[in-house]
Amino acid sequence: MHEYFMNLALLEAKRGAKYTHTNPLVGAIIVKDNKIVARGSHLRYGCEHAEKNAISTCKTPEKIFNSTLYVTLEPCNHKGKQPPCTEAILKMGISKVVVAQLDPNPIVSGKGIKFLRDNGIEVTTGILEKEAYNLNYAYNLFHTQKRPYVVLKQATSLDGKLAFTNERTQITGKEVYDFVRKERDNYQAILVGAKTVLIDNPKLTGASTSLYPPKRIILDKEGTIFQHKELNLFKDDSSEVIVFSKYKNEDLPSHVTIITPNEFTIKEILTEIAKLGIQSVYVEGGPCIHDQFLASGYWDEVISYISPTLLGGSNTSSFNSDRTTNEKITLHDINVTKLGEDIRISGRKESQCLQD
Amino acid sequence: MHEYFMNLALLEAKRGAKYTHTNPLVGAIIVKDNKIVARGSHLRYGCEHAEKNAISTCKTPEKIFNSTLYVTLEPCNHKGKQPPCTEAILKMGISKVVVAQLDPNPIVSGKGIKFLRDNGIEVTTGILEKEAYNLNYAYNLFHTQKRPYVVLKQATSLDGKLAFTNERTQITGKEVYDFVRKERDNYQAILVGAKTVLIDNPKLTGASTSLYPPKRIILDKEGTIFQHKELNLFKDDSSEVIVFSKYKNEDLPSHVTIITPNEFTIKEILTEIAKLGIQSVYVEGGPCIHDQFLASGYWDEVISYISPTLLGGSNTSSFNSDRTTNEKITLHDINVTKLGEDIRISGRKESQCLQD
Repeated sequence: MHEYFMNLALLEAKRGAKYTHTNPLVGAIIVKDNKIVARGSHLRYGCEHAEKNAISTCKTPEKIFNSTLYVTLEPCNHKGKQPPCTEAILKMGISKVVVAQLDPNPIVSGKGIKFLRDNGIEVTTGILEKEAYNLNYAYNLFHTQKRPYVVLKQATSLDGKLAFTNERTQITGKEVYDFVRKERDNYQAILVGAKTVLIDNPKLTGASTSLYPPKRIILDKEGTIFQHKELNLFKDDSSEVIVFSKYKNEDLPSHVTIITPNEFTIKEILTEIAKLGIQSVYVEGGPCIHDQFLASGYWDEVISYISPTLLGGSNTSSFNSDRTTNEKITLHDINVTKLGEDIRISGRKESQCLQD
Repeated sequence: MHEYFMNLALLEAKRGAKYTHTNPLVGAIIVKDNKIVARGSHLRYGCEHAEKNAISTCKTPEKIFNSTLYVTLEPCNHKGKQPPCTEAILKMGISKVVVAQLDPNPIVSGKGIKFLRDNGIEVTTGILEKEAYNLNYAYNLFHTQKRPYVVLKQATSLDGKLAFTNERTQITGKEVYDFVRKERDNYQAILVGAKTVLIDNPKLTGASTSLYPPKRIILDKEGTIFQHKELNLFKDDSSEVIVFSKYKNEDLPSHVTIITPNEFTIKEILTEIAKLGIQSVYVEGGPCIHDQFLASGYWDEVISYISPTLLGGSNTSSFNSDRTTNEKITLHDINVTKLGEDIRISGRKESQCLQD
């Protein structure tokens, strides 16, 4: 029975998708005598948490007394702009709380539950915990590992080529183009190298399906893009552009920020990105950048769009650098789907024991 | 109604799969008063043709008089070891013949049909012609273009790598291994380059599902494999080994033949292979050989096995050479299947307007 109601709470949580920004998706179901008396979710960054949303939208608040609350994430116990959720739970007379997942932040994890138990509320934890973790995989990873969730995304021909040498090349078809624009909106930042910017001149925008469009991060140690003021990234100010470079440049539009990390390593760059509160990064290449991420070990997922085409010869190939390696890395949680004539294959470095 | 019976004839034809060697698959159905009175196929190289097989295995031969014969390929009109099929048709009093596809050999094409018509038999042609063509795509291409059907087969990681540099590398899993061994039996020869032989030391054998195991062709212009008598290809005599080299070598086992073409071009090599009567070649690489075939235009199909793994760095990548090209080749008749954790993608250079 716990799993039945928690599954409904997970469904509720998904209502906030792409609107909660750096906050997690959370859903809540309030049950009394095996009947649902209220349901709610965290619908938007800055708005009520799921538990409060369930309570406040309930038409029969008296029914909440002595009820059971199912919530996908541990209720908060810290004071923000409003009193914490734990106090609201106590105040409404909820007698049991069932939690899927503890707060991932080790500093606060368990405190909400302790408060509830200390106040006589019966608490059960760990119901559909993996499903709840997967719902907020980037949020969870960010708060435990202090770095963003990293997706390495590429589009290749059947012979593993990305593009004709130094030439903008459309490898996959319209279905992939549309899908990728929406997929970008699932992440808080898109990252590419300077060479990709100079060859493709991309805007790196999503499909406006998120309230918080992804930021655009460029790795450009030598500052090669600064002299090209005509680049779409400089003209389009629909979201922030962050350039990692050792050079400063005063003559850039206000939506462009330059960061100089201590070292130009993937680890240092991700540390700087985490400092900005960015929890997930969608890395779109080029192949040297992908290979640097691979070599660093700081990556979590690969998404490859494969087109049934051939380029051949000396054209630019996937995950490519001068690096010598003989480690074969096997991906987990493999997902294969067709998009028009193209194929999307995704896999994770570590299994979450769940298919999306 | 014609299509209904021709479909059954096509099914009959498939009974001969992997047993008819250089002969085509052919099926026949004999129908009288809308009832099937006989059925047959060409079951094995050197045995009866489909029409004769249907006639000879019919328990009620008197019913064949005044019947309709459905046959997937034009009946032969030339004398081999036995009188031609057209004479048997005439002798049995068959009054109508429905043919899917004319004989592809331009020298004999149409002659069987002309003989039947000249002798008062009503002939209909072109029923399920494409399906019949596809059943014997290699045979048909060989007799019209005077070269073997060429399949470029590879196994890659998700980043388009074939192997660690100069190291035998198993990229795909057991399911692909087993599948490829059977798939090899669909072709009359397997072709690889000398480097693949020296690094992988393969036997290049099938799964013994064919009566005529594929021959093994090695491209080794410089004769680099000759000094390695310990190679599995020299030790295993289960099928012929043909080495294309500019050097002769007298000190090889009897199952090894050396051919020196006029030029070491793909065109010349395929001309020599065609002279041996080999109608289909399964080209297993390496990447330079694949790219040479691609550049030559003499190829028909690509089969790529993709493993959800990453190798990265400077490892050996798919279809790779120093050649500069900016032509994107789009494949047709795409087929995608999963084999264990791996994915098989196939596509043709020219569409046959049919999925396998």
